[in-house]
Amino acid sequence: MASKQNSKFTSALGHSKATVEKSHISHASKKRIREIRKLGFNTDAIITGLLKGNKTQLSKAITLIESNANKHEHAVKKIIAASLPHANKSVRIGITGVPGVGKSTFIESFGNYLIQLGKKVAVLAVDPSSSISGGSILGDKTRMEELVKSEAAFIRPTASGDSLGGVARKTRESVILCEAAGFDVILIETVGVGQSETAVHSMTDFFLLLKLAGAGDELQGIKRGIIEMADAILINKADGQNKKAAKQAKVEFKRALHLYPEKRSNWIPKVKLCSALENWGIEQTWEMLTNYFSLTKKNNFFEENRKQQNKYWLLQSINEQLKSQFYNHPEIKKELAEQLEKIHQQKTTPFEAANYLLTLKR
Amino acid sequence: MASKQNSKFTSALGHSKATVEKSHISHASKKRIREIRKLGFNTDAIITGLLKGNKTQLSKAITLIESNANKHEHAVKKIIAASLPHANKSVRIGITGVPGVGKSTFIESFGNYLIQLGKKVAVLAVDPSSSISGGSILGDKTRMEELVKSEAAFIRPTASGDSLGGVARKTRESVILCEAAGFDVILIETVGVGQSETAVHSMTDFFLLLKLAGAGDELQGIKRGIIEMADAILINKADGQNKKAAKQAKVEFKRALHLYPEKRSNWIPKVKLCSALENWGIEQTWEMLTNYFSLTKKNNFFEENRKQQNKYWLLQSINEQLKSQFYNHPEIKKELAEQLEKIHQQKTTPFEAANYLLTLKR
Repeated sequence: MASKQNSKFTSALGHSKATVEKSHISHASKKRIREIRKLGFNTDAIITGLLKGNKTQLSKAITLIESNANKHEHAVKKIIAASLPHANKSVRIGITGVPGVGKSTFIESFGNYLIQLGKKVAVLAVDPSSSISGGSILGDKTRMEELVKSEAAFIRPTASGDSLGGVARKTRESVILCEAAGFDVILIETVGVGQSETAVHSMTDFFLLLKLAGAGDELQGIKRGIIEMADAILINKADGQNKKAAKQAKVEFKRALHLYPEKRSNWIPKVKLCSALENWGIEQTWEMLTNYFSLTKKNNFFEENRKQQNKYWLLQSINEQLKSQFYNHPEIKKELAEQLEKIHQQKTTPFEAANYLLTLKR
Repeated sequence: MASKQNSKFTSALGHSKATVEKSHISHASKKRIREIRKLGFNTDAIITGLLKGNKTQLSKAITLIESNANKHEHAVKKIIAASLPHANKSVRIGITGVPGVGKSTFIESFGNYLIQLGKKVAVLAVDPSSSISGGSILGDKTRMEELVKSEAAFIRPTASGDSLGGVARKTRESVILCEAAGFDVILIETVGVGQSETAVHSMTDFFLLLKLAGAGDELQGIKRGIIEMADAILINKADGQNKKAAKQAKVEFKRALHLYPEKRSNWIPKVKLCSALENWGIEQTWEMLTNYFSLTKKNNFFEENRKQQNKYWLLQSINEQLKSQFYNHPEIKKELAEQLEKIHQQKTTPFEAANYLLTLKR
């Protein structure tokens, strides 16, 4: 299902401007890593700068996280260790929605509004599809013209090509660095077409789904499970001719959300309208978020959820590595295919085959 | 969530008749295993009998699968190997619903109807909660009075206490034996309160959710994701005073099902009313099923799905064992708790902790 959707969206974007932007990002990312390799870096200067909120040093630190080079491992550990005591003090907001829904424009408006309130805003992205396409989100910085220029904003495009696990790890560690650098609202953007929303949902305090009011077909094309992850659905571009359809969609989404059991947070998911173009709905979105944070900090879900997320990523990371060690073993690869064929021919069962394969690595 | 629900239902059943029935089953199961251990068994006789459709031998074979004894391993392998070429020819139907929804009564009516059509019907159960409570479903055989007596029916209560993975394996292998014994409709029952529906959904061709029309609160208490697994929702006990509420519920469920993307099978999930008491809806259920099988056999989903299920159980079984080998290691257990505490104190990250723990077992 997901892969079907993915390919659909990939092909839809195939020859659009976005593709051009993508390769540019990947290029920029590579360039940063090359520069750091050539010019070297000063770990202590990075740490001092970062903790003072210096965006250049923060950017360098994230580049080190992104560079998978072994020789940077020690520096990365040192920077993270220095950042950790200062981390954990922000609110982390996940923002998802299919391409075209207006995520960048929303983030521009929302980010600027938060900055007016005196917040420092970091924008990160999780987009594993970038490993194929070279990065597809946060690329179009022209849509965030103002935010990009603001001293109180830090925008970091997607980490370049990697597995979802790898991208997730880099993003989670970038969050820590951003927090240590004093950013108190972290927006994590993702394209709602793959497994990445689950990852973003598992690293944020609040999960916002952006939708458009369509032709009566509101719920088509949404990945199974994504609606139930949402703490709020924001129907974007609810302006002009779309207004009527947007109101209709609001009713339908409310009904959809009603179908799910109560959330562990005790929060009742909201459906809101928004128009980044007409610049309204932004203030209401932040008001909703403050209500959410006030509720979940009071009932302790906020803290408990972060604890659970840490555990989740610990176990997730271990399990991924256990599996990759096993399945990437050349002998296992060969035998796995053979056992699958034997199962298909009704010569063995999945359980017998599993036991057989496990004995090979003992 | 699941555990919360589980405990709710467990306590609700705490002092009811069901509890008495439960221990009886567990006892019966233990008795069978003891008998086989004492009296011994003849593997060849079991195989010959089973392939002829002899229910006593089939029952003995399943007992051997359930007895985890090493000394039976060879016999089990031999029986499965002999059964495999004759398996795979049935239709496998998963039936789920919370306690009290009328699963047993439905299966009694449905099973008897199928037998009238000349089918041979096997009824199995997946109920991992039995490991705690001693088995809670298929226990009340008094509700299946007729079916139990029928020559063309084979009813096997839940495998006694085990992990979900273990119960799933035993059930999957019991299905193979039942098929080899000529049963052409396999009903697999489960209580919709835990992870077990996912397991049953992954071992059946069609997944049926039984529901009651309640007090306007139709969708409360259903585990997240269970509605989207359903190929059909059957609103049971839609008789007498319930009729109006049942019709209302039908509308609501139809709407709920509409919210999900198209199924890979191309099947559009149905909502039907049923009254086992008044004995109607049964024929229509089977008609719906034959439509489903005709569609999915034509579009090849039926075959492809079984292939995918085999792969799923192979990988699932490997992954479970990889994890259990790792996490059950005494050193890992101790260090895992310590690392979690360190993460909580912001002294390390989940990813660093994962890498550290993985080096311990290298």
